[in-house]
Amino acid sequence: MEWKVYLSGEIHTDWRQQLIQGCQANNLPVKFTSAVTDHEASDSAGDLLGAEQSNFWRDHKSAKVNNIRTKTLIEQCDIAVVRFGNKYKQWNAAFDAGYCAALGKPYITLHDEDIIHPLKEVDASAMAWTQTPEQVIEMLKYVVNSEF
Amino acid sequence: MEWKVYLSGEIHTDWRQQLIQGCQANNLPVKFTSAVTDHEASDSAGDLLGAEQSNFWRDHKSAKVNNIRTKTLIEQCDIAVVRFGNKYKQWNAAFDAGYCAALGKPYITLHDEDIIHPLKEVDASAMAWTQTPEQVIEMLKYVVNSEF
Amino acid sequence: MEWKVYLSGEIHTDWRQQLIQGCQANNLPVKFTSAVTDHEASDSAGDLLGAEQSNFWRDHKSAKVNNIRTKTLIEQCDIAVVRFGNKYKQWNAAFDAGYCAALGKPYITLHDEDIIHPLKEVDASAMAWTQTPEQVIEMLKYVVNSEF
Amino acid sequence: MEWKVYLSGEIHTDWRQQLIQGCQANNLPVKFTSAVTDHEASDSAGDLLGAEQSNFWRDHKSAKVNNIRTKTLIEQCDIAVVRFGNKYKQWNAAFDAGYCAALGKPYITLHDEDIIHPLKEVDASAMAWTQTPEQVIEMLKYVVNSEF
Amino acid sequence: MEWKVYLSGEIHTDWRQQLIQGCQANNLPVKFTSAVTDHEASDSAGDLLGAEQSNFWRDHKSAKVNNIRTKTLIEQCDIAVVRFGNKYKQWNAAFDAGYCAALGKPYITLHDEDIIHPLKEVDASAMAWTQTPEQVIEMLKYVVNSEF
Amino acid sequence: MEWKVYLSGEIHTDWRQQLIQGCQANNLPVKFTSAVTDHEASDSAGDLLGAEQSNFWRDHKSAKVNNIRTKTLIEQCDIAVVRFGNKYKQWNAAFDAGYCAALGKPYITLHDEDIIHPLKEVDASAMAWTQTPEQVIEMLKYVVNSEF
Amino acid sequence: MEWKVYLSGEIHTDWRQQLIQGCQANNLPVKFTSAVTDHEASDSAGDLLGAEQSNFWRDHKSAKVNNIRTKTLIEQCDIAVVRFGNKYKQWNAAFDAGYCAALGKPYITLHDEDIIHPLKEVDASAMAWTQTPEQVIEMLKYVVNSEF
Amino acid sequence: MEWKVYLSGEIHTDWRQQLIQGCQANNLPVKFTSAVTDHEASDSAGDLLGAEQSNFWRDHKSAKVNNIRTKTLIEQCDIAVVRFGNKYKQWNAAFDAGYCAALGKPYITLHDEDIIHPLKEVDASAMAWTQTPEQVIEMLKYVVNSEF
Repeated sequence: MEWKVYLSGEIHTDWRQQLIQGCQANNLPVKFTSAVTDHEASDSAGDLLGAEQSNFWRDHKSAKVNNIRTKTLIEQCDIAVVRFGNKYKQWNAAFDAGYCAALGKPYITLHDEDIIHPLKEVDASAMAWTQTPEQVIEMLKYVVNSEF
Repeated sequence: MEWKVYLSGEIHTDWRQQLIQGCQANNLPVKFTSAVTDHEASDSAGDLLGAEQSNFWRDHKSAKVNNIRTKTLIEQCDIAVVRFGNKYKQWNAAFDAGYCAALGKPYITLHDEDIIHPLKEVDASAMAWTQTPEQVIEMLKYVVNSEF
Repeated sequence: MEWKVYLSGEIHTDWRQQLIQGCQANNLPVKFTSAVTDHEASDSAGDLLGAEQSNFWRDHKSAKVNNIRTKTLIEQCDIAVVRFGNKYKQWNAAFDAGYCAALGKPYITLHDEDIIHPLKEVDASAMAWTQTPEQVIEMLKYVVNSEF
Repeated sequence: MEWKVYLSGEIHTDWRQQLIQGCQANNLPVKFTSAVTDHEASDSAGDLLGAEQSNFWRDHKSAKVNNIRTKTLIEQCDIAVVRFGNKYKQWNAAFDAGYCAALGKPYITLHDEDIIHPLKEVDASAMAWTQTPEQVIEMLKYVVNSEF
Repeated sequence: MEWKVYLSGEIHTDWRQQLIQGCQANNLPVKFTSAVTDHEASDSAGDLLGAEQSNFWRDHKSAKVNNIRTKTLIEQCDIAVVRFGNKYKQWNAAFDAGYCAALGKPYITLHDEDIIHPLKEVDASAMAWTQTPEQVIEMLKYVVNSEF
Repeated sequence: MEWKVYLSGEIHTDWRQQLIQGCQANNLPVKFTSAVTDHEASDSAGDLLGAEQSNFWRDHKSAKVNNIRTKTLIEQCDIAVVRFGNKYKQWNAAFDAGYCAALGKPYITLHDEDIIHPLKEVDASAMAWTQTPEQVIEMLKYVVNSEF
Repeated sequence: MEWKVYLSGEIHTDWRQQLIQGCQANNLPVKFTSAVTDHEASDSAGDLLGAEQSNFWRDHKSAKVNNIRTKTLIEQCDIAVVRFGNKYKQWNAAFDAGYCAALGKPYITLHDEDIIHPLKEVDASAMAWTQTPEQVIEMLKYVVNSEF
Repeated sequence: MEWKVYLSGEIHTDWRQQLIQGCQANNLPVKFTSAVTDHEASDSAGDLLGAEQSNFWRDHKSAKVNNIRTKTLIEQCDIAVVRFGNKYKQWNAAFDAGYCAALGKPYITLHDEDIIHPLKEVDASAMAWTQTPEQVIEMLKYVVNSEF
């Protein structure tokens, strides 16, 4: 069995690459998916449909185009990893966590200790809180192990 | 028909009271529910189960006790209003929005214009973006109107 | 038991009133709901959220505000009646029928014989095709009869 | 991952072929499905079950045979594209859109600007409104991109 | 709590009346629903929509009108009782049992011992097999008892 | 796409073989599944769990073992064909049809004209009524056609 | 709003009575339901359907009659409390917990500290672990509080 | 078709190996999955996330990490086998059975005769009770047989 793991959240550090490389190095039967992580491309995803004068509608169109992708990939994943960095609002990451919770989709949070209080509701519905990509890799090694 | 409206998010201003009073003044058939909005009470909701040495577990217990309430009330509501103030992380509000989105529960956001960009994913799945409690009241007046 | 009947479609004739009066005259335990049928009010439902320069976005906002109401009422109804007049596109009526079909919600169509061909997919998933409000009333009399 | 895209609506222009060729030219991992688009074949799909004297029942039988196919393919798709031409009622396209909306299946509309008003409810539940097959191709290129 | 009990199947004996009277005599908080049990009325339920020359389509229309009622009442019941007499095909009763099974709706069969073999699949998904209305009444007395 | 077709009902004629051979002869991308059709084997499916003195419990055990198979295969199929012969009760076939109906799984009935009246409820929820295996084959040829 | 609380598990101590009286003393808007807790009555619930020679089938019939009640009440509750005493297997309590977990129904466990290890999977899906009925009452007071 | 069979429960005997070898010896198209059965590894599954001073939280973390795996594999299986040994509480096995029951996932129990009474609720929702791995193998041979 191949496990599908969706990577949500922070796009300013290389945590996705660390996870992917770590799982490859361990030959884990894991396939990763994610939202588009190129900030510019993501913000302008709706521009191909025509220019907007209002910032709200430009954002709206782009967010919906992105949502075609993210909604589908989240609903198809077996596990989600939701990363919160120390900067920025990252409300989309919390939104994804709530989406997973409502679907009964198991998710793991990845964030530093100093934001555990504002993330308490997000962590309360998570299956685990991790602090480093290495911990996620270790956990996946255990979880997807095909031997009993 | 009585409409059940769940109020999620910011607890530091009186937007909930404004909404409730506005709907009462208009005799709307609306019943409001919400998480517990007393900050201290909410943070210590799990303390009755015994003290914890770790902040993480104290938060965890309290968040889960609160979740018994919020999960039930969100699943029973017809409409949610999700309020984002200009301060704080408010990840629980974004989490609630994601939860509503996955359930197909219609929700309305209530926030200022200067945070439309970080909220674009949350707004993309919302049925409306409002900027004042008055707008929410006007909208509810229209939506719950029992005359055709 | 009170049956909830949602009335979808054409707003330019008085078929809703005929249905309601006919059911009242027969003392049927039926409660009717509907989208807002005031054309002007419906088209401007989103205007309270601010003016739009683009027709598309004005329509978009209004349609979503209306959808808060219609989605909720359709999901709560026991039976829908979907009326197609001989004029206009009425794509929202066909949309409602498809929505009902996917939910497994029984619906009845009400339209003239000369449009049975373009409505064949809509009728194929309906529980009955009626041509007059009187037929709908007769059918409801039979269906909601509380005696066995 | 291969994305399954269902093509619904207008059968009198070659928009399906344009989409398919455009995606092939871009080597997109997309597989298209559709209702049977041969008008004659579709209208007579039920004739093999015996002749009918009534137009209604002939249409009914054919529409249900077609529905075995369309219902299955819509439920299995990841994305639907719903095309409205400028002629004809095309109620089946609006029906498919409503069906997708109720299932939470993301769909994109494809239609000219002059029918945005009658399609406002259909567009309100869509993830995007496009005006040309090229826009759909561009969007799919972005959405199904397997790189993050 | 009031329990809703749907009575499906045989219409040629007075088992429904026995059940209803027995539960009333015991003041059980039970409310019964059923398909229309007047054979003539049921067979002609669709006639109000116009005469049909084909027996198949006459039956088809009537069965669908009846289905508006039965589908709704079965989906709303807490328990179904499915009665098989010793005569007739009664495929609709077996159909109702299958419908309940797929919904996870608990149902009780009521039939004589000499038809246990042909009913083995229907009984296999039932919560109990009873042979007399008295047994059903006794069971309901136990099941709906509001004291622990 | 390979279509999964479940074959339910009568086991005393060779209609299953006719269907399978007809679809193979036409190279249709169809895969058939079915309950075990060996009557003796099916009736004794539970005997490996120990002998029973009561006929009811012997039947019960066997029916449940068979149900592990049939429930799984029905839930996984895209289309079911439900065959009613002219003899026997065949309540399991009607049960399967009801099960499909509740799941929204499209099914086709296959039976002679002289039993349309007792099967009217079963046919009312079917997508088509066929009278010969040839008709089913023709219909599948149309439905599973991979060209648009 | 009245909250429905299902009480599952141990029947040899008076924890249910303590909970009920404590909630009444606090005027909480809570309604309790439960399996039948009279051990003899529960074990013989199926005897009215006829005597059985095999212990397995006697238990089987009774357990299914009880299941009509418990399945319905669990699916209708808002919160379940699952009590494990220090004696007996109590597999039905763990079964109820698993049933709640799969339904996404929030449940609270009530058990002593010395059995936390064997209950770790049951506690992992619970919203809270309590050790005394007083804790459950305190928690319900907080959770069902109708003031924000 | 390959059948996915999840093996739940007792980890102190070699029943899993017997099942797997028996199915391999018979070339059955069956693929087995399971929780991690190494007792030490399972109990310490959460330790990689940091040490805990409280036994409850150590167990809690490990149980949740294990649950990522078990929840996913149970939801993906076609059939579950739930084994109860004669020793230990094995509440997780009963929990898994309840989880399967709520999902409508068919499961088979495997246990000795002397614990049929405490397991009566678990057996009541099972499709079969077996006493030896050989019986499970025989049953799977019958159930997954690809010939009709």
